[in-house]
Amino acid sequence: MKLNNRGLLVVISGPSGVGKGTVRKALFDMPNHNLTYSVSMTTRKIRPGEVDGKDYYFVSKEEFEKKIKEGKLLEHAEFVGNYYGTPLDKVNEKLEAGSEVVLEIEVEGARQVKEKMPDCVMIFIAPPSKQDLYNRLKKRGTESEEIIQERVAKANREFKKAYLYDYIVVNDEVNNAADRIMAIIRAEHAKTARTIHKYLELIGEEE
Amino acid sequence: MKLNNRGLLVVISGPSGVGKGTVRKALFDMPNHNLTYSVSMTTRKIRPGEVDGKDYYFVSKEEFEKKIKEGKLLEHAEFVGNYYGTPLDKVNEKLEAGSEVVLEIEVEGARQVKEKMPDCVMIFIAPPSKQDLYNRLKKRGTESEEIIQERVAKANREFKKAYLYDYIVVNDEVNNAADRIMAIIRAEHAKTARTIHKYLELIGEEE
Repeated sequence: MKLNNRGLLVVISGPSGVGKGTVRKALFDMPNHNLTYSVSMTTRKIRPGEVDGKDYYFVSKEEFEKKIKEGKLLEHAEFVGNYYGTPLDKVNEKLEAGSEVVLEIEVEGARQVKEKMPDCVMIFIAPPSKQDLYNRLKKRGTESEEIIQERVAKANREFKKAYLYDYIVVNDEVNNAADRIMAIIRAEHAKTARTIHKYLELIGEEE
Repeated sequence: MKLNNRGLLVVISGPSGVGKGTVRKALFDMPNHNLTYSVSMTTRKIRPGEVDGKDYYFVSKEEFEKKIKEGKLLEHAEFVGNYYGTPLDKVNEKLEAGSEVVLEIEVEGARQVKEKMPDCVMIFIAPPSKQDLYNRLKKRGTESEEIIQERVAKANREFKKAYLYDYIVVNDEVNNAADRIMAIIRAEHAKTARTIHKYLELIGEEE
């Protein structure tokens, strides 16, 4: 019996190259969960095979900037001349329906989410060591030494943001990390701050 | 890989009759854990078959009161003319060794523990409903209506202390409640407040 029926907004973030996507995938592959994605909004052109409302919500630049001004995006960023963001109303609908909404986003986006929705669960994925992350960044492709150095510098800045998170989970083994995140979600549902209201109803109603 | 190697002090409490003992037993029966009890100290006489240091630490009243004055008890209470309490040094030894120390205690004792060790994990076990607890209290024995009414009144006072806890776990089904507590323990180990120190070491050492 859960005393909190509202879903949780779970933010999975961490430095580039740490394996956020792999951890998120392992999490969704686990049995018996109520996890859901949030479809992002973007101003980039729709590609063949993509479906509006499934892959992305495709909107114009004007529409997107209007959403920003009205505070209707949980977070957003610009990337290669296009906007990407998370629509607040869609996330709220899912949370109200009792689903956990999982956002796998960059460190800067995570900071924005925490500001807009302070009761979200912020999880920082950390590498087993700094060297491990450097090795991953280097292995990623055939990029120049300059690009690799830029990535390392970015990772070093992102490393320092861990203190802004509620939890730090080391991605030593992907299923281990996913298991730990599932435990965090279960525990968060039992937190007094989230349960006391319904608990008091339960106690009071029967007096 | 855990970033926090110190064990957790886990306080399981809640109103009398809620089934704290059964939940604690189910918790210890689970596989792959590092949970341990804390042996209490008492001034009551040792009984045949009991072992000092195993069942209780048996001490004199003078010794016990000295411990209280020196702040060496995590919590204590008087019951039918005898003192009962939890020795702080023994708990700390186990925590340092990386074991989770589980205390299953009354609401008043739990409050004392929270004061002495604010980083403990406070879990309030709640009944599925108020009526459910009343029924359990009534079924307990052949006591008079007066004693039952006293118990109900005590439970009603204890119900109101739930807000002092970090988590509220409903004991609807004992294994369910134990599962949830195990998730809480795993999640607490990943909390930033407990991990940031070692995380920064991990990051800093390799610069």
